[in-house]
Amino acid sequence: MAHRTIRAFTEQPVSNDELHTLFQVARHTATAAFLQQATLIHVRDQSIRDGLCQVSGQKYVGGTRGELFVFVADLYRNATIRHEAGIESEVFGRTNMFFEAIDDTLLAAQNVVVAAESMGLGTVYLGSLNSDPRRVIDLLKLPRLTYPILGLLVGHPDQSPMYKPRLPLSVTVGVDTYPHVESYSDVLNDYDALVTEYYDLREAQQRIDSFTHQVRTRAGTGASELSPILEVLHEQGLVLH
Amino acid sequence: MAHRTIRAFTEQPVSNDELHTLFQVARHTATAAFLQQATLIHVRDQSIRDGLCQVSGQKYVGGTRGELFVFVADLYRNATIRHEAGIESEVFGRTNMFFEAIDDTLLAAQNVVVAAESMGLGTVYLGSLNSDPRRVIDLLKLPRLTYPILGLLVGHPDQSPMYKPRLPLSVTVGVDTYPHVESYSDVLNDYDALVTEYYDLREAQQRIDSFTHQVRTRAGTGASELSPILEVLHEQGLVLH
Repeated sequence: MAHRTIRAFTEQPVSNDELHTLFQVARHTATAAFLQQATLIHVRDQSIRDGLCQVSGQKYVGGTRGELFVFVADLYRNATIRHEAGIESEVFGRTNMFFEAIDDTLLAAQNVVVAAESMGLGTVYLGSLNSDPRRVIDLLKLPRLTYPILGLLVGHPDQSPMYKPRLPLSVTVGVDTYPHVESYSDVLNDYDALVTEYYDLREAQQRIDSFTHQVRTRAGTGASELSPILEVLHEQGLVLH
Repeated sequence: MAHRTIRAFTEQPVSNDELHTLFQVARHTATAAFLQQATLIHVRDQSIRDGLCQVSGQKYVGGTRGELFVFVADLYRNATIRHEAGIESEVFGRTNMFFEAIDDTLLAAQNVVVAAESMGLGTVYLGSLNSDPRRVIDLLKLPRLTYPILGLLVGHPDQSPMYKPRLPLSVTVGVDTYPHVESYSDVLNDYDALVTEYYDLREAQQRIDSFTHQVRTRAGTGASELSPILEVLHEQGLVLH
């Protein structure tokens, strides 16, 4: 519950032991149908990292601070295992199989994040890589039947940001059924005030904004929200039916 | 790294304090673009649980042991916040937005799993709910723009299963690029032997099977892998473009 996003890291590198632990944690995560359809790319080449920084549009992705990972949903490995045995199959184009791969990939990512935080490291997810998934696929030479789901930076924290207030459980947890409310404007009034106060207090930040105002004005307007993800998935042979 | 799937639970209930902690952990998980597009349904009604047990096809989902949760990707809440303000939008039909919601949902799920395990509880994910997502949506009265991603059982373990061996890092982690191999048959030979030994040693289990044999024969053949997920997503107004 002490999770905060860390975007500034010291120059202290993540040790090889720590890296190995994080890889092992990813490896031991639950996996759908035991198919193990996730692959982790550790980005060490500076020119590739610079390219991913451009894709993300976020300065802190560049430079050398923090280790950069990309979590890849991977149906290629199992398709190749079949191909080697002379078995071709349309099954990997099914949305169902891609969902199993997304399960594996995101569960592994969060397992790595919790492990990193337990070791005193800080993390920031990079959903911003979805701004240009074709370029990420090209930079990392990802084969067909794979898709880069999320980036992640892990390093020694060089900041101690405030906790960002989250939606109340009354709207995010339901018992037996969806937690409908009469009016979100009413129910989220206090929460909106908390979020506004958070932005007001946060250092070096001008924006003062409530949650519902953000949803009304900004949801779906970011580069990672407008890119042709479904086209790229189809190009990769995924989510076809 | 001590993760094992627990499918048998004692009659000892998960306490209200423990449940509250798990809800708080879900709430504090990282969220894409701060949109908080995940909702957790806690299933307490026995008839709903029986229905979900039927969908899953797994006996241990029925009965009263362990608490049953369903993690729901939720674009409905934010669409409704907009609707209340008179703002309609096609944006929630975008695959990009659904991916952000899947991120939120699966990261929260794994955060809950790690927290539960840290409290001595055991867990099993229920991807099997994807066998009939329409029925899950109906049972939990989920509105449009939502989709049930995964179920989860959490309880006090009544078994201590063996660790299931996972793919070697040589094929699941790449540096800078996808970790291609010459021949999976060769590279996974030792791993296949480990998996076969695991099945051989596992109690009360007849199947003896290698990893690559499973991939060649069983991948994509399960009920949750053959259901019309993409149709249901479209019915829910999701992944349209």
